[in-house]
Order: sequence, then C-alpha cells, then structure tokens
Amino acid sequence: MIKRIMYIHPVRVTDPLFRDELLSFLRAEMDPDVEVEVTSLSRGPLHLRYRYYEALVLPDVLNRLKAAEDRGFHASIIGCFFDVGLQEARELLHRLAVVGPCQASVQIASTLCRRFSIIVGSGKGIPRIEENLRAYGAHHLLASFRAVDLPVLELHQNRADAVRRLREAGRAAVAQDGAEALILGCTATFGYWRELQAELGVPVIDPIIASFKWAELAAGLSERYQWLPGRIGAYEPPPESEMGAWGLLPADDLEP
Amino acid sequence: MIKRIMYIHPVRVTDPLFRDELLSFLRAEMDPDVEVEVTSLSRGPLHLRYRYYEALVLPDVLNRLKAAEDRGFHASIIGCFFDVGLQEARELLHRLAVVGPCQASVQIASTLCRRFSIIVGSGKGIPRIEENLRAYGAHHLLASFRAVDLPVLELHQNRADAVRRLREAGRAAVAQDGAEALILGCTATFGYWRELQAELGVPVIDPIIASFKWAELAAGLSERYQWLPGRIGAYEPPPESEMGAWGLLPADDLEP
Amino acid sequence: MIKRIMYIHPVRVTDPLFRDELLSFLRAEMDPDVEVEVTSLSRGPLHLRYRYYEALVLPDVLNRLKAAEDRGFHASIIGCFFDVGLQEARELLHRLAVVGPCQASVQIASTLCRRFSIIVGSGKGIPRIEENLRAYGAHHLLASFRAVDLPVLELHQNRADAVRRLREAGRAAVAQDGAEALILGCTATFGYWRELQAELGVPVIDPIIASFKWAELAAGLSERYQWLPGRIGAYEPPPESEMGAWGLLPADDLEP
Amino acid sequence: MIKRIMYIHPVRVTDPLFRDELLSFLRAEMDPDVEVEVTSLSRGPLHLRYRYYEALVLPDVLNRLKAAEDRGFHASIIGCFFDVGLQEARELLHRLAVVGPCQASVQIASTLCRRFSIIVGSGKGIPRIEENLRAYGAHHLLASFRAVDLPVLELHQNRADAVRRLREAGRAAVAQDGAEALILGCTATFGYWRELQAELGVPVIDPIIASFKWAELAAGLSERYQWLPGRIGAYEPPPESEMGAWGLLPADDLEP
Amino acid sequence: MIKRIMYIHPVRVTDPLFRDELLSFLRAEMDPDVEVEVTSLSRGPLHLRYRYYEALVLPDVLNRLKAAEDRGFHASIIGCFFDVGLQEARELLHRLAVVGPCQASVQIASTLCRRFSIIVGSGKGIPRIEENLRAYGAHHLLASFRAVDLPVLELHQNRADAVRRLREAGRAAVAQDGAEALILGCTATFGYWRELQAELGVPVIDPIIASFKWAELAAGLSERYQWLPGRIGAYEPPPESEMGAWGLLPADDLEP
Amino acid sequence: MIKRIMYIHPVRVTDPLFRDELLSFLRAEMDPDVEVEVTSLSRGPLHLRYRYYEALVLPDVLNRLKAAEDRGFHASIIGCFFDVGLQEARELLHRLAVVGPCQASVQIASTLCRRFSIIVGSGKGIPRIEENLRAYGAHHLLASFRAVDLPVLELHQNRADAVRRLREAGRAAVAQDGAEALILGCTATFGYWRELQAELGVPVIDPIIASFKWAELAAGLSERYQWLPGRIGAYEPPPESEMGAWGLLPADDLEP
Repeated sequence: MIKRIMYIHPVRVTDPLFRDELLSFLRAEMDPDVEVEVTSLSRGPLHLRYRYYEALVLPDVLNRLKAAEDRGFHASIIGCFFDVGLQEARELLHRLAVVGPCQASVQIASTLCRRFSIIVGSGKGIPRIEENLRAYGAHHLLASFRAVDLPVLELHQNRADAVRRLREAGRAAVAQDGAEALILGCTATFGYWRELQAELGVPVIDPIIASFKWAELAAGLSERYQWLPGRIGAYEPPPESEMGAWGLLPADDLEP
Repeated sequence: MIKRIMYIHPVRVTDPLFRDELLSFLRAEMDPDVEVEVTSLSRGPLHLRYRYYEALVLPDVLNRLKAAEDRGFHASIIGCFFDVGLQEARELLHRLAVVGPCQASVQIASTLCRRFSIIVGSGKGIPRIEENLRAYGAHHLLASFRAVDLPVLELHQNRADAVRRLREAGRAAVAQDGAEALILGCTATFGYWRELQAELGVPVIDPIIASFKWAELAAGLSERYQWLPGRIGAYEPPPESEMGAWGLLPADDLEP
Repeated sequence: MIKRIMYIHPVRVTDPLFRDELLSFLRAEMDPDVEVEVTSLSRGPLHLRYRYYEALVLPDVLNRLKAAEDRGFHASIIGCFFDVGLQEARELLHRLAVVGPCQASVQIASTLCRRFSIIVGSGKGIPRIEENLRAYGAHHLLASFRAVDLPVLELHQNRADAVRRLREAGRAAVAQDGAEALILGCTATFGYWRELQAELGVPVIDPIIASFKWAELAAGLSERYQWLPGRIGAYEPPPESEMGAWGLLPADDLEP
Repeated sequence: MIKRIMYIHPVRVTDPLFRDELLSFLRAEMDPDVEVEVTSLSRGPLHLRYRYYEALVLPDVLNRLKAAEDRGFHASIIGCFFDVGLQEARELLHRLAVVGPCQASVQIASTLCRRFSIIVGSGKGIPRIEENLRAYGAHHLLASFRAVDLPVLELHQNRADAVRRLREAGRAAVAQDGAEALILGCTATFGYWRELQAELGVPVIDPIIASFKWAELAAGLSERYQWLPGRIGAYEPPPESEMGAWGLLPADDLEP
Repeated sequence: MIKRIMYIHPVRVTDPLFRDELLSFLRAEMDPDVEVEVTSLSRGPLHLRYRYYEALVLPDVLNRLKAAEDRGFHASIIGCFFDVGLQEARELLHRLAVVGPCQASVQIASTLCRRFSIIVGSGKGIPRIEENLRAYGAHHLLASFRAVDLPVLELHQNRADAVRRLREAGRAAVAQDGAEALILGCTATFGYWRELQAELGVPVIDPIIASFKWAELAAGLSERYQWLPGRIGAYEPPPESEMGAWGLLPADDLEP
Repeated sequence: MIKRIMYIHPVRVTDPLFRDELLSFLRAEMDPDVEVEVTSLSRGPLHLRYRYYEALVLPDVLNRLKAAEDRGFHASIIGCFFDVGLQEARELLHRLAVVGPCQASVQIASTLCRRFSIIVGSGKGIPRIEENLRAYGAHHLLASFRAVDLPVLELHQNRADAVRRLREAGRAAVAQDGAEALILGCTATFGYWRELQAELGVPVIDPIIASFKWAELAAGLSERYQWLPGRIGAYEPPPESEMGAWGLLPADDLEP
C-alpha cells in the first residue's frame, strides 16, 4: 500500500520556498511507501497571526481537506502550528486522517522530556497555542514560551538571523526556564532544528517533520485498523443529505 | 445616549418566529434607552449542530459584526449558545462590544449558585459547550449536562412537548445532580424559562435574556469607559492596511 | 421602576472622601433610573488587611445587608475587593442582589482580554484575592499580581504618588507579565482608572464602577426575572423560625 | 512538658453529651502527657448548617482561641467539620496551634488510601466541605459525598438509627463509588467510627480523634520547634497597637 | 535501515500464547522494514496486579532494556498497560526509544475523539492507570473506566467469555458514559479489538498494536533525528563511572 | 505501649554520620514512649539522584519494611525526600505504618502557611518532587523550588558552606517568590533547620523531624484505631499464597 499524504498550507503562499523547497524537504524525510503533495489556498491571507484570518481560511481549508479525501489521500497535515481547523476536520471527514503540527509535536515531545519550551515567532501567538496545549492536556509540561520577535514571513528570509534568534531563545529556555527539550512553534522554521539541536544539546522538534511522521503513522492506522475519528459525540459528522439540501457540500468550494 | 444593540442569528433563518417574535420578545425585555435589531445570515445552514457548519458561517458572522460596528451599534449578541466567533470578534472589532449567550448565562448563574446544570437539545452539543466552560473557568460550577433529545429546529415547533421535556430534565438535574440553578443551553428555547422556573423553584436562566442584558451593560461600559477588548496580546487586531492589501477587508462580504 | 442600590463600606469610615466624594462619584456614574446610598459600619476596623478584621465585621455587614433588604433596596455592593461576606449574603438574603467588586471586575475583565493583572496595595492581600479567583474560576486568566506597597488608607491621601505607583506597576504588568488589561484591586483607588487607562493603553477596570454597573444589572435581573440565589444547596437560607427562637435574627443588630 | 489542648465547640451547646461525655471520650484517647478542656460558646446558634451562623460565631470563636492562647494552651481544636475560622485563627494567633477536624481527617485519610468518601449529615454541607477540600488540595482524593439526611442535632439522639444510616451510606460508598476509606464528616458522630469500621472493613476516620491526635502532634511541633504559622504573607498577624487603638483586641470579648 | 523492535513482557510468561502467538501477531502487523523479538523475564510474578510485583520486576525490566540497547535495538515496548518503568527507562537509556502501551494508546485515542473509556480487567488497576493519565495530561479525556472482573491471566483462556464481557462493558461506556472511543486497558486482550470495533461501531484501540506502531515511529525518529529523551532535567542519566564504581551497571543483571 | 519506629535509609550508607549521629539526633527528638532503630541497605547506590537508582533499591526497601513489620515495629520512615516506595509499601504491608519525609513535611507545612518553597540540593530532583506534590495535592501551595547546587553527599561534609547556600536560597525564596515557610527538600540536611529558621524568621521544616513526628502519630493511630491503609482498591495487598507459590515472599530477601 502506498500512503498518500497531503500537506496543506492553510494560507495563500507566494514564496516558492514553501512549495518547491518544502516538497523536496518532505520527500527527503518520507518513508519509501509514501507519496506527498503540497498545496496551499488560492486566496486569503499570507499568514495566520490573527484569529480573523483563521476564520477566513477555515472553510477553504476544510473544503481542501474534503477534496483530498475524495481524491483518495490517506492523511493530511494542516500546515500551521495553531492546528487551525483540526477539530472541525475530524468531525467532517470520514476516511482522511488529519494531523496538526502542534498536537503532533507536543505528543512526540512528551515522550522525550517532562518539560519543554516552545519558541514562537511573536508573542501574539502565545495565547492561541496555550489554548491548544490546554485542550491537548499538555499545559503541565510547558516550561515556557519564548518569542523571537520575527514575523512569520521573515522567518525564512534571513535564515542566519532567524537561527541566531532561535538559538538565543532556546538557550535561555534551557538555562533559565528548565526546558529539557524544545519545540519550534512555527511551521515556517522547517529545517532549522538540526543545527539548533546540535548546538543546544537538547532535542529540538521540527513541527513539520513531527506532523509528517505522525501523518505516516495515522495513514497506516486508518488503513489497517480503521482507527479514524469516532462517529458519535464530538466528531459526529454532518449528514450528507442535509448538507446537500442546504447547498453546503464541500464540493461547493468557495475558492475560485 | 441610546444604546443600539444588534442580535445576530449566526445562521440562515426561515422561521418567522426567530425574526418577528424574537424582536417583540427583545423589545419587551429591553431597557428604555435601547434600540434593537434582529438579523440573520442570508446563506448557510439553519442550525449549528456541527463544527463544520460553524466554520462555514464564521466569516459571514464576523463580517456582519463589522458591518454593525460601522453602522454605529454599541453591542451585539451572537445568537447561539456555542458563542461561535466570540473570540475572533473581540480581536477584530474596535468599538462594538460582543456578547455570547453561553458566557453571559454562565456569569450570571455563577452569582446565583455554586452548581448549575445546563439543559441542552442534544448530547452532540455537550463537548462543544464543555470546551466553552473550560475556557471561561466555569467547569467547576457544572453539576451536569442533561439532554432532551430534540433537534434545535423542533424546540419551538411543539412548545408544550419541549417544555415538558425541559421540565423533566431540569427536575432530574435538581433532584439527582445537585443543581441549584439551571441554564437553558440553546437560544431556541427563549421564553420557556418562566414556567420552568415557576414549576421547578430554582433560577432558570434564559440565554437570550442573559446575553441581551449583558449587552446592555457592555454597551454602557464601552461607551462611558471605553472598556473594550485590549489591543495587545490575544485580541491584538489585524491591521487595516494589511487586510486592504490582501483584499480581506470585512467590507469584502462574501454573502450575496 | 427605580433601582435602589446600597453601597456598603464593610469598615468604619472616618475620611469624608469615602462618604461624600464617593456618593458624588457614584451619582455621576449611575443610570438615570437608579437611586444610591453609601453607608459604612459604626464600629470596627478602618481597613480589612487582616482576616481577623474581616471576621469582626462580618456579622455587622450581613446585618446591614439584611436591613437594606428590609428597606426595599434591590441590590447592594460590599465595598471591598476581598468580596467579604459575599457567599454568606447570598445564602442569607432573599430579595437583595449582592455584588462583590472582585467578582464583578473579574467577570468584566474576562470579556476584554485573555490575561489580566491585578494591582494591589500590598502583597498581604494577594493570597486572599487568589482564593477568590480560584473560587470564581478566573485563576487561569491571571497574568500577575503587582503590589504598590501603599497601605489602603494612604491610597487616596497622596493621589499623585498613588497614581504614579499604580502606573509603574501597571506598565510592568503589561511589558513583563503579558497583561492585556488591568484591574485595580482595591476599592480605595476609585477614579484613578481614567488616567491610567489613557496612559497605559489597555483597559483599566475600576472595581467600584465595575461592581456598581453589575449591581444595576443584578437589580434588573432580580426585579424582572427573580434571578436571585437559588434556595437549595449552597445558598439554602437559614429558617426565620430557628433564627427567631435562637435570637439570631439580623434585626438583632450588634452595632450600637 | 504537659501539652494543654482546648477543644472548642464553635456553637452554643445545650446537650451535656457534648460536654461531659466528650470530655470523657477525649480523656480516654489522649496521650499521658496531655491535659484537655472542652468549651463552647455562651451565645449563638446550636449548629452551623448555615454560613450565616458561621459568620455569627466567628468573632466569638477567635476570641475564645485568643483567650486560650493567653491562658497558655498549646493547641486547640475548632470542633466543626467545616473548620470554621481556621485560616483566621492561624493569622491571628502567635503561640497556639489551631487544628481543624476536616483538615486533620483528610491528611490522615490521604495516608491510608487513594480515594475516600465523606459521609455527611445533610447535603447542605457538601459545597461547604468541597470548598475546604479544594483549599487543602484533597479534591482529587474524593470518591464521593454521601448524605444520611439527619440534622446534626439528631445524630447523637438516636444512636442506633444514626449508625444504621451511616453504615448504609458507607457501604454504598465502598461498593458503588470506589471508596477505600471513609471519613465521618461531622463532629457529632464521635465514637461511631469503631463499629462502622468493624462492620465495613475499611478505615473509618472519626474527625474528633483525628483532630485531637493532630493537636497533640501540633502542640509538640510548636513547643519544640516553634513550627507555628509564618508571620508574613497569608498569616501576617494584625498588629496589637492598631487593634488596641481601634478597640479590636480580642480581650474585648463580645460574649457576655 | 531495518528497525529492530523488542517487545518485553515485564513478567515471567508461562503461556506460549504470549510468546509464539504474540510474535505471529506482531509480525502480521509490522511494517516491512521491521524486525521484532518478544521476550519476557526469567523470574518473578506472572502478572502485575500489585505495585509490589511492579517493584520486584522493575530492575530486571530496566536491565533487559539496557541489554536490548546494547544489542542494537532501536525501540522497545514494555508490555503492560501500567507502563511500568517507562520514566526510569527514558532516564537510563541513551539510544533505545521506549514505548508504553498506555501512553501510546492514549495519544492515538486523543486524535480520534474527545472522550474515551478504558476497559480494564479488574477495578484494582484503575487508580494505577488514573495516575498515568494524570501524568500524561489525558485525564480530562476520560469518559469512564469499566471493569470486566476477569483476572489478567484468564483474559485469554476463554476468549468467547472475555469478548462478551468486554463488549458489554464497551457498550455501557458508549451508551451511558459518553465514550466516543474505547481503549482496551490490558495487553492480554490483544487481537480482541477487531470484533469489538465491528460490533460497537466506535474505534477500539488495541494497546499492543498502538504501542507497536508507536515504536515503529519512535525508532525512525530516534534514528533519523536523534529525537531521544533529553539528557538534562528529569531524564538526566546516571553516569557510567558512578554505576561502575558502585557495581550498579545493568550488565550486572540480577536474573539467573 | 512502646512505639517502635524504624528509620530506613533507602541507600547504602558509608558515612557514620548517617548512622550514629542520626540515631542520636532522633533519640533527642523522640517522645519518651518511643524506641528507634536506624538501618540502611547493604548494597546498592549511595544516593538516589537517578530514578534508575530508585528502581534498584525498591525491592530491598520493601523487603526491609516487611522485615520491620515482622519484627513488630509500628511505624517506619523511608529516609529520602522522594518518598521512594511509599505507595508500594502501603499496598504491601498490613500492620506497619509507613511515612515519607516529603508527604509529612508538606502536610505540616500546609498548616503553617499558604505558600512554601522547597530548597533542594540540585535541580535534577525538582521534577521528581513535583510529581509527589501533584500526587499529594500540594502543588498549589508551592511558591518555588530553589536549588543550592550541592550533591547530596556533600550536604553534610562542609556544614558551614551548606548552611550558607541554604540560607541564601531560603532568603531569595522569601523575598522574591512569596514563600511564607520553607521545607528542606533533602534528608541529608537534618539539623540545619534551627539556625536557618532563626536567621530567616519563617518556619523551616526539617524533613527528618517532620517524618519522625508523623511516624509517632501514625504508630499511635495504627495501634489504637487500626487506622492503617485500606485493603481494597489502590492498596489491596498481594495475597500471601500467590507470593509463596511464585517465590516472591519478601522473606526471600535479595540482599546478601
């Protein structure tokens, strides 16, 4: 069986880095039985610093996920550390396993330490991620947040400067906050983990790798064991008939 | 000063009950210095049982709120007990106080008892409301959820049957779960509180009244004291310039 | 309907500021359909820094509230940020809505931000307020306490010095602790909020205004909807007959 | 060294059982180096079912404790499972160790099991005790409350009936709620533990014995090591000079 | 790269089912690039119902894990739902990823639902597992425990009876406790998940499969990214030199 | 009745200080009706900085406790602030009360303040103790940990240096962290409390004294009231017959 995995940027992407380089990056990391696609939205904001922007992209993201399900993908990653739409996707979809970089990173980190710090681009994202940590039950494992004060779109423009800031933040988290491992709290930092880990001497989790490897796992669990979200309670899905009658079918994609 | 309050159904409404009767209901309850409008969406689902439906209405709801702000309203109620879009609205808007029926009901109930139960239409909504309670810090005040197994759209169709079921659920919550007050966990039950309270002998909170009275309060706080959401941290708003450049301005209303 | 509201200082007051000026202050803030009285105890301590002092005033405060209820008041504010006697009053009283400055401030702040700091006169009050926050379910919203090291009775004596200290504490809370809004954690600071808010750029909650506006709301809820504390469980009231037989009737006021 | 321990009923006591029999009971249980006195209030309610009653007795209880300190007692027990005045006493007093039956029982029980149930006279007391458990950090050890629906004053009048009800409640707690030990949540049940423990086969904690033995321990810790409440922060005591100037000195006993 | 995985029964095993059949079971489930061994202790108890038994096997389990590390295994599963020795192993070992069935099952379940129930052999294990859930931050996701009252050693002896009991317990958890997914809380139930899931219509997590698939993931993370437990703080390992000097080296295996 | 108490070092002890001096120390502190023995292991590590070391000593510690029970001791102290084996011992033993220095210190401190700091030898122990605090329900009382960066074996070698470091850490905890009392978080610091308390002016809990006095209490509770761990649920003991059949009887002591 080939595991087909879709990586979705829940934003409009203009920088080819996040298309071509990311695709190469993922291909270098993936298992031999995997196929990967990278996609992004055709409209909307370039980043999700604001909840309003999240709200705007949410329908498009879910429709993209539905389309991926229809095309036979087995797993999908919503490529933002806020895990935007993760709960909604698990309710809506029937056969596609959906993975969030924050949840995947946190689950992996919780097997590597008892306290981790999350390095974020800016402080604005902290309450948003904190909300995720509480929902995931990981708040007691948080040593600290540390912000590097770089907008997400600049995190890849001057790689040397970004790595330098991340290193300083990470070093402070280890020395002062008791962090035993670090999570890079933004998908735009992909690839930076390696030199940070080498220099800091603690595990540094790359959220894209974490979510991609989780997606490989989830694709297998879903295919072999049908371990997909339960169809009652929180994830009871909307009925096709009602969606059809009301014109809400995701096929009804709002994107041009 | 006249307090102008907008009640927004975050759904498409077909039943005149939720337009005309609700407007009359609100006018009967409002303070003399208040003006009220009731509005609803022109497209989308008729209820919000599913998170996917919430996702679909979210941009339209926020844009409606932005339009209400531009028209000079002082406060607005998002008319669903899930408080859909409440966090996003508090980030986006600058002068409009936004109120959620769940938060308003819970805050009022927490001054009337140490344990309340929430009566919901169906069990599907329980994890959704529980999430709100945790965010609001009210989970330790919850005696129980009780579901009456009526779809939201039927809660007003057979009033006698609905009241009978709510009464049974409320009675069980008081007798078996230790509830000292009750909250009706669906805005479609407006008006039912009175006979339930008379029969059950404990306070029964109507979420529309609770949120409307909170909106009157919030309108005053906002006008007199500029006590509106802080502009840093969680509610730092998206900048107009960026939204303009990217074509995201709420004026860019997606509704026909 | 005229809403009659009683503001009770739960201490002996010697400074006319807290009588006449406070009354003028409240009259300037109140809605047109409100009447207000300010009262204080005729014996006991001048402040409530110590729990022992709280214990001493507690019977007198409750008896004063009972007297206010008997005189037909609709709502009452216990004028200390410790909310002294709030739970007891909600058990004892049948028709008078009782409001605490801490609970009212916290409920309003929780609609304006996801993290607030409380500025207190001295560190001694912090564990006392922290206890309230836990009971109210607001502890997860606390960014920090900051103390200005001024005794409560001096907070109004040198206004310029007090405001300067509060401003410094508030600025530190915003810059270092992640506060998105501030609460002034002492009723003796009434009126200071305005210049602090103007200078600091975040909402600054005045606990007297917050509680007074909540009292206006509560008076309406109680009159129109009988939303008063439930009579079972935590707030089951002591029976008149037993109190009479044992000579405990609040009419039995201990104050001279 | 003789350890002098004062047992204070924080109520007016009319039944000689709680004076003479209790004294005999304590003398039978006490260590050889202990002297004990039993006292009660000369005015006020006969029980503390209501928070208002607690408020009424609070000044008298604290003044009695102060008097006991002045007379050279080493430890004192406030004889009600609500631990009324415990925090206040620890702030006020300098040399007298004060023990609450609830805290003592819970601390002992937490060394005997991972889940206990508390058997109470009536459901009214449950929120009150729950508040204590949260403050003491014992809430996660609670299997359940079970109420026997007997007023506190009747718990000793028909001993056979009371024991029968307690046994039924305890048996249900063990069989249905997962209790591994039981606490009798009312000091009026003193002495009943023995036959309940024999019949139910799990530890049954008598709150008077628990608090008395804790008082013996605390008397020793205080005498030998000066391990008495810290004088800063939560338990910073009111200064004698201020109390004197304001006429608040506990010597100023309000009781006739 | 071949991923070498060691499944360790932390008990003495006499039933060939847990050797040969389990090995076949794992081979049927494993990825093509995996090699697996199943091993067990040569002394000690046959089950771990008691903490004392856990204490007895703990040194042997850790020494076995150390031996597996020395032999070049990449990941190991400690085959008991109590995750016995998991924290200790993560401190001790440097290159071997160690997986616990409870943590792996709970992490997978938390991506499939918002509330799960755990079906256990007997109630004795509940406080033990509850302790794990609190440490893992999953307690808020627990709908209930349900016990089938079968000793672990009988769970595979009468398969039809065991499945019947598990089905009844699972059905009750779904119908009465709000479970949206189920976890089989004992590794002795391996293989039963399939018919339970088919009949109950919710995901049923097999803890051996869950931990095995997690081990495959962890082996890859460890090999490719060196994402292994951090070497500071909670998982700072004991130094070889000190262990050597004191004769504590795991090579010093106590098993005959 | 003579209370016989066994103090067990859960390590191999080479320094006579911990044998002879500790015995003298305990004899000076004990009640007149007490007999005490101090013992230690005959093999294994000299300290328990690592969880692996804890795992190694655990069977020996439990077997020593079982032997103490068989010899008629009434209570025993496991002499390490990690309370190693405390839960296991309460399950295994039938007549011997077992006390942990951390639990005893925390219970006593919680009657002396609302916030305490724990001074530890090194930061490595912090997550270990934090785990205990969460289990005991004392985490909300923790002001801070402060580490003095001295290995446990050096804490008694240069007494002046150790006291100086403890004093600095304690002073910082009081001045900066809001500590109202201090706990010395290592049994190797016995005796230092006195000068620290005198200099710092807050209660300083010596964990050996705290646990020894708790053991005196527990010995009495167990002898007079049979208040020993419940025999169902978490502390249901392993049956002698099964242990005998499997050769697990603690008599089967592994120590030479």
